[in-house]
Amino acid sequence: MTVTMKIAVIGAGSWGTALAAVLGQKHQSVCLWVRSPERAAHIEATRENTQYLPGCKLPQSVAVTGNVSLAAGGARLIVLATPSHAIRATAATIAPCVGTESIIISAAKGLELTTVKRMTEVIAEELPSMAGRLAVLSGPNHAEEVGLGQPTATVIAAPSRTVAEFAQDTFMLPYFRVYTNPDSIGVELAGALKNIIALGAGIADGLGFGDNAKSALMTRGLAEITRLGMAMGANPLTFAGLAGIGDLIATCTSVHSRNRRAGIMLAAGKTADQLQAETSMVVEGIRAAKAAYQLAAHYGVAMPITEQIHQVLYQNKSPKEAVLELMTRSRTHEVEEVALNHLHWN
Amino acid sequence: MTVTMKIAVIGAGSWGTALAAVLGQKHQSVCLWVRSPERAAHIEATRENTQYLPGCKLPQSVAVTGNVSLAAGGARLIVLATPSHAIRATAATIAPCVGTESIIISAAKGLELTTVKRMTEVIAEELPSMAGRLAVLSGPNHAEEVGLGQPTATVIAAPSRTVAEFAQDTFMLPYFRVYTNPDSIGVELAGALKNIIALGAGIADGLGFGDNAKSALMTRGLAEITRLGMAMGANPLTFAGLAGIGDLIATCTSVHSRNRRAGIMLAAGKTADQLQAETSMVVEGIRAAKAAYQLAAHYGVAMPITEQIHQVLYQNKSPKEAVLELMTRSRTHEVEEVALNHLHWN
Repeated sequence: MTVTMKIAVIGAGSWGTALAAVLGQKHQSVCLWVRSPERAAHIEATRENTQYLPGCKLPQSVAVTGNVSLAAGGARLIVLATPSHAIRATAATIAPCVGTESIIISAAKGLELTTVKRMTEVIAEELPSMAGRLAVLSGPNHAEEVGLGQPTATVIAAPSRTVAEFAQDTFMLPYFRVYTNPDSIGVELAGALKNIIALGAGIADGLGFGDNAKSALMTRGLAEITRLGMAMGANPLTFAGLAGIGDLIATCTSVHSRNRRAGIMLAAGKTADQLQAETSMVVEGIRAAKAAYQLAAHYGVAMPITEQIHQVLYQNKSPKEAVLELMTRSRTHEVEEVALNHLHWN
Repeated sequence: MTVTMKIAVIGAGSWGTALAAVLGQKHQSVCLWVRSPERAAHIEATRENTQYLPGCKLPQSVAVTGNVSLAAGGARLIVLATPSHAIRATAATIAPCVGTESIIISAAKGLELTTVKRMTEVIAEELPSMAGRLAVLSGPNHAEEVGLGQPTATVIAAPSRTVAEFAQDTFMLPYFRVYTNPDSIGVELAGALKNIIALGAGIADGLGFGDNAKSALMTRGLAEITRLGMAMGANPLTFAGLAGIGDLIATCTSVHSRNRRAGIMLAAGKTADQLQAETSMVVEGIRAAKAAYQLAAHYGVAMPITEQIHQVLYQNKSPKEAVLELMTRSRTHEVEEVALNHLHWN
């Protein structure tokens, strides 16, 4: 089925490129904005983003441009797929192009560092008229697999059911299944915060710990990000779904995960600054750890894993010491504490 | 710290052997029962179970015997670590040795096939006087890693807090952290049912699906086993903890998991009968799928993944067709359904 409405994807990292490829399977007019005009021309000509998503051929229905007004102008659906730290500037840039019928989907996973706000909060500040027409796309989605057409499930969340279902219809394909969820706060927080746990999982892998330790770290990590999410108004069930556990698993166990790889390099002795300097991709977990650390203090939520990762990243704590501290705390009577509250004895 | 009470571990597969090694770090009198007297003598002499747990040296505090009365007689704590299908006979065998102060811990993950009962239900039928002194040990615990002393967390569950905390104290070591949970129904069901999802994860791996598909399968698998657990009286929070998500992750992502490996072989065209015939270890998921299929029907719980795995195992359905059916169902408006209930729109 082809639909002739125009769709824009703003940002041509691996994820923006993969989403443009998905949308191009189903829609005749998809426009992908690439920051560098030279790269835009190269991708337009070769139909491939060799820098960020090699091996994924873009359908002819995807036009590629370095001109953001040309990309976003007249688009019914605008997907923002820049790194999280660029979302505010991007939203401001597209403001003149946004129509009264447009819907914006945030595909960035992160929190704004200076304000610790969610991406849809940032977008709504720059585009107040869009407040009721914002959605979030998040889930266990490695761009590399989506780009190759491998089976994938994702979540689109919006407070408005109409908006969520419109976006769902726009993306849904047999190999790209979209579920809706009204809890965009939970979906955004889960997507941002799991990157912190992925850094921890990478550190555990890098230090040679086994699957037992890593599974325990992931389980307790999910519990602590759920606790923070609940304090911030999220539905805990969201963390039990694709955007929560699903994304956490995909991020912590895959070779594709750059956050997990960053953790492995931290375990090998690299500093956070070195990591950021050496990679052309953004390691969202490094920023998310700082934001989550502030949020945990603000909301009074215990986040022992986040605290240790924060110390490794920003206070030169040794990764080994941090993981050992998590694994060998000296309490002797521990009832398992999960996300919602303690389990109770009869 | 050494304690002089006697402890028995009944069953010397990989898990029983690993648990004997853990207990032997802390207690002076641990007795491991091995079914074959010849193997018992070999393990006693070499301090190593080369068949099931090579590389793990048993402390001198662990005595090894082929005589079950010698092993269990006078033991304050008895750990049953046989495969689940042997638990009833094992419980009957040790009945004459069980004292009025003894506590029994089930370390077997599975359901009895003929009765679809949990292991503690089976044990209580054979040893009615023990009903209040039963506990369950379960979690993300690969025996191979525990045997090498790698950091591990586990859960001990019992309706009686006194029993749970006694067992916790008995096992707790710096590298083997034990959490307690009052919900032994949930802990037992999670441990048995996750093996079905691990077969599915192995099938997905074997068919060449990526991490996106596998993460989605695991997430939705956890949701369906949680639904069944709730119908059977379990606390859904248990499934969000180490014995639930934690064990699911360890089982579905590790090279150590024999259920996952069995799924990979199913994907390659082996039948369930061939698998059982070729391995000396028991693939618990093959039995659990049959039990869960019956339970889902009995309790009226939708378990689409279990249903497909059951068809692959017992109705010669092609694994590829089963996975594709799960990934490409034709509903177009899907609100994500998680364990507890639907998420609600405002």
